[in-house]
Amino acid sequence: MVQYDKILIFKRMIGIFDSGVGGLTVVREMLAQLPEYELVYFGDTARTPYGTKSKETIIKYAIEDTNFLLSQGAKLIIVACNTASALASEDLKKKFPNIPIFEVVMPAVKQALGATKNKRVGVIGTYATIGSGLYEKLLKNNNPEIEVYQAPCPLFVPLVEEGWLKNPETKRIAKKYLHPLRLKKIDTLILGCTHYPLLKPVIQPKIGRRVKLVDSAEAVVGEVKKFLAENTEVEKTLVKGKNHRFFVSDMTPRFGAIAEKWLGRRVVVKKAEV
Amino acid sequence: MVQYDKILIFKRMIGIFDSGVGGLTVVREMLAQLPEYELVYFGDTARTPYGTKSKETIIKYAIEDTNFLLSQGAKLIIVACNTASALASEDLKKKFPNIPIFEVVMPAVKQALGATKNKRVGVIGTYATIGSGLYEKLLKNNNPEIEVYQAPCPLFVPLVEEGWLKNPETKRIAKKYLHPLRLKKIDTLILGCTHYPLLKPVIQPKIGRRVKLVDSAEAVVGEVKKFLAENTEVEKTLVKGKNHRFFVSDMTPRFGAIAEKWLGRRVVVKKAEV
Repeated sequence: MVQYDKILIFKRMIGIFDSGVGGLTVVREMLAQLPEYELVYFGDTARTPYGTKSKETIIKYAIEDTNFLLSQGAKLIIVACNTASALASEDLKKKFPNIPIFEVVMPAVKQALGATKNKRVGVIGTYATIGSGLYEKLLKNNNPEIEVYQAPCPLFVPLVEEGWLKNPETKRIAKKYLHPLRLKKIDTLILGCTHYPLLKPVIQPKIGRRVKLVDSAEAVVGEVKKFLAENTEVEKTLVKGKNHRFFVSDMTPRFGAIAEKWLGRRVVVKKAEV
Repeated sequence: MVQYDKILIFKRMIGIFDSGVGGLTVVREMLAQLPEYELVYFGDTARTPYGTKSKETIIKYAIEDTNFLLSQGAKLIIVACNTASALASEDLKKKFPNIPIFEVVMPAVKQALGATKNKRVGVIGTYATIGSGLYEKLLKNNNPEIEVYQAPCPLFVPLVEEGWLKNPETKRIAKKYLHPLRLKKIDTLILGCTHYPLLKPVIQPKIGRRVKLVDSAEAVVGEVKKFLAENTEVEKTLVKGKNHRFFVSDMTPRFGAIAEKWLGRRVVVKKAEV
């Protein structure tokens, strides 16, 4: 069971969770756009990836991850995992009605709706995210004229985790996945997985230079920024500082190595039971 | 908690577990070499893959997986996962001293020792398996003259699960992983992951036609066959039949689809809590 740390009871911070390392792209955006706030991150590396698992299992894991972050002093939660956002964020909001919960799907949908001119939007993500049909539903609910073209790209996550960000193999796989979307003449592509922003330099040329890439990490941090500006009573309770803490459910050397590479700073990682 | 099914108390069968679908290659070998015995399979799809996780976590999961199979009537266990075999089989044998437990590492090591002529043996597997150094240790303990060359191939598992068994992308990635081993002039290659036998048609040409591929699924079933021939008091208690049962910790449509494709028969999959 999670142990509540008494020292932390009066500290209130922004909590971020993901199935593993992918949500670190949201941390990176936080450090860029909102560098003053102290963060607590949880990566569920013992059960990663979520993208191939069922809705029921993903909801269970997301609730456990949120409970862990709350036990560590989080007062605002960012679900930095598209799979958990797509399948579990409604349940999380019901389960934790007093906690502001941000997820990465709706901010990306809004950006895509604002960006598209020809009303042809592509979405890429894991099997679970694409299979949920959530992006398509939200896009069409907001604008029934939008045509949505989706493609699961399950190898992108292991390629990113392997660090093969610009390899010829990665380029070939990207071409294979993206070619059908290119034929559909989309003008906007939602990167529906927090790992994918790291592949932008490969994705952009394969989908075409004129296609706008919507990065959900960037989009959700924009929403959090707006929320904090409008809700000063929440904002002023948040701890400012740089003592960001990183927890994982399974300790492997790769998490720390990837985190330091992506964030460009030293990262101390601790193991947590959820 | 696992519920003991009273009907099963008097049935004794062969239990097989893996982190997910990979162990189905062992099921396939069982159906080929020992088709008379009834099997119960458990794939830990809620927590797959094991290959990127720590030793401590893998031991915990392997014990839970074994307990589940015992609750279903298994009286003989095959650890059909190289990662769990490499990191957890000693602990399993201590924890369950009265159950014959077979693992996939030692049978493959024995085959490789018998096959190599030039004493240059390659091993491929997940990060966890290669990082454990177990294959190298066992090969050298048995013959200190053997030179061992290892390479982690972490993308092979997602490629197999994606069904990309003969794609040009898979061929390129195989070439990249295997080229350093080819330069070492190995004459024997241990496929140290139960997914890899499905990539034999890609691996063989990339490593060289004259290199002997050691398939751990084939090797472990050979050991079980030998054990049953020598231990008739165990053999005669085992149920014969074709009502093989398949359980997973997370229900997704992909497990059943892959199982039917690999095994070439109809497969009914049930969800189990471990």
